[in-house]
Amino acid sequence: MHFADRLTDVVLRMKAPCVINLDPVFEKLPDAFTAAGRATPPPAARLQSIEAFAAGVIEAIAGIIPAVKINSAYFEIYGADGVASYHRLLKTARDAGLLTIGDVKRGDVGHTAEMYAAAHLSDSALPDPDTLAMPDAVTVSGYFGLDGVAPFIDVARREERGVFVLVRTSNKSAAAIQDVATADGRKVHEVVAAQVARWAADANTAGHHGYSSIGAVVATRNADDAARLRKAMPQSIFLVPGYGAQGGRAEDFLSYFDADGKGAIIAAGRSVIFAHADASLRARCGDDWSACVRTACEDFVADIRRAARL
Amino acid sequence: MHFADRLTDVVLRMKAPCVINLDPVFEKLPDAFTAAGRATPPPAARLQSIEAFAAGVIEAIAGIIPAVKINSAYFEIYGADGVASYHRLLKTARDAGLLTIGDVKRGDVGHTAEMYAAAHLSDSALPDPDTLAMPDAVTVSGYFGLDGVAPFIDVARREERGVFVLVRTSNKSAAAIQDVATADGRKVHEVVAAQVARWAADANTAGHHGYSSIGAVVATRNADDAARLRKAMPQSIFLVPGYGAQGGRAEDFLSYFDADGKGAIIAAGRSVIFAHADASLRARCGDDWSACVRTACEDFVADIRRAARL
Repeated sequence: MHFADRLTDVVLRMKAPCVINLDPVFEKLPDAFTAAGRATPPPAARLQSIEAFAAGVIEAIAGIIPAVKINSAYFEIYGADGVASYHRLLKTARDAGLLTIGDVKRGDVGHTAEMYAAAHLSDSALPDPDTLAMPDAVTVSGYFGLDGVAPFIDVARREERGVFVLVRTSNKSAAAIQDVATADGRKVHEVVAAQVARWAADANTAGHHGYSSIGAVVATRNADDAARLRKAMPQSIFLVPGYGAQGGRAEDFLSYFDADGKGAIIAAGRSVIFAHADASLRARCGDDWSACVRTACEDFVADIRRAARL
Repeated sequence: MHFADRLTDVVLRMKAPCVINLDPVFEKLPDAFTAAGRATPPPAARLQSIEAFAAGVIEAIAGIIPAVKINSAYFEIYGADGVASYHRLLKTARDAGLLTIGDVKRGDVGHTAEMYAAAHLSDSALPDPDTLAMPDAVTVSGYFGLDGVAPFIDVARREERGVFVLVRTSNKSAAAIQDVATADGRKVHEVVAAQVARWAADANTAGHHGYSSIGAVVATRNADDAARLRKAMPQSIFLVPGYGAQGGRAEDFLSYFDADGKGAIIAAGRSVIFAHADASLRARCGDDWSACVRTACEDFVADIRRAARL
């Protein structure tokens, strides 16, 4: 079934336009995962702890959140073993009933883009489908133009998957490039947004909710920009980072949603997965790290639910 | 030793401002590598053939070319096994005396960018340095601003490596974004170029040849744009794709070099590594695919040497 419809259906059913980022680093894991052994375990042992922890997070949040986003970088740092772990966790998440987004942010052109699209979105590149999975959608850079994104769109259409095109990133120094004024009075990221809108219209993949499987990553904290981008890309579901540890509050995300509370999913990461480090959560949930994760996730969903008026 | 100096020294010594792209696909390999077995061997066997072929290319061109660029996408499509193969080939190339560029084109921000920088440029992330290597330099997207690139610059400084920042890609649809006019009369890619020049100046890493370890990927076919970019980024070595199979001829690359023939390396891929498929080369070199590769590489170097007046 159509990715944007699958995502929107579950968002509406759970009243939760939300996604949890799995960006785990060994040093921040709960004691139960770091205490097993020496002060500095070898990389293979660290990766094993990270994978066990991430699987625990998936178990804790399944049923209260529609989707997880797994950040490839945090696994690539473990080389080939990390890549295997990334695809195993995608399988774990899928088996737990979650939609999955692979945060790979690949950006290249021509035949190389075709290779990346197959490598990161197509089941055809999966060595062992019994233990590994591809994500339901991936993040892709939009700054190289259509032929950087077209191969991902092709796979998405063929295998009912989704693509989130990077339009505006959240970092401070992004403005020096992405917010530069163009001769026709736009900002550079609006040029990319207009392209994404055209790709989504041309791909003609709008589902029954009116949204295409070609979404956008939009991370501006500027409410005017956000509202302009919402209008500029009417068919795209926005993947919006920045909640919680990155400083965003629910009211900052109001302008990302359409009038029905659809069209955006807000991402939270560290504030949920490392909830055990939050003293006020521990006071409510005790020393059970997974209870803290679940509670933090429930708080996050409730907060965003209000903002989206769902 | 300083990456830009190492690269420039060997370019001048060999009179070869050149790099060979290793972007191997199974279907295009010489018969010796595809004939071993069934019509469609399993992925592991295909990857093995690709790795053996790539190692053979490295052996054929070592001594006549300063560097190879290995494209991560062509290995990522084989999942975890492909990633291991990529790092083994980097070791093979380094052991053969070649400088290596990892064409990974990662682009992300904040802590994720730090993870990618470590994962793809730092020896600290290498599980087994006896059999695997990191590249001497990597390609990185420049469109997310300084904090997307800074972690790579940090690793490059600490471990004497290089970074090539994507400024202008070679694909047709790139113009719709990268060539858009800004309010102050530039093109968007010139905004990125100005940033790269500033990062290179701030990093203060110019070596004895006057070039910084912060280079740029510049692939425009527009000679005016190329000349402007050469002036805009005086400290950056340009990595320039497009020779041969991509249609570029030596005279197209003139404006990339400085007056001393330094400051750029031109990349060729398919026209060299798949030389066995070129009937005119086979007529000269016979059925020995590696002799064809070596001859094609020598032709390429001689052609670029003339253009750079070395």
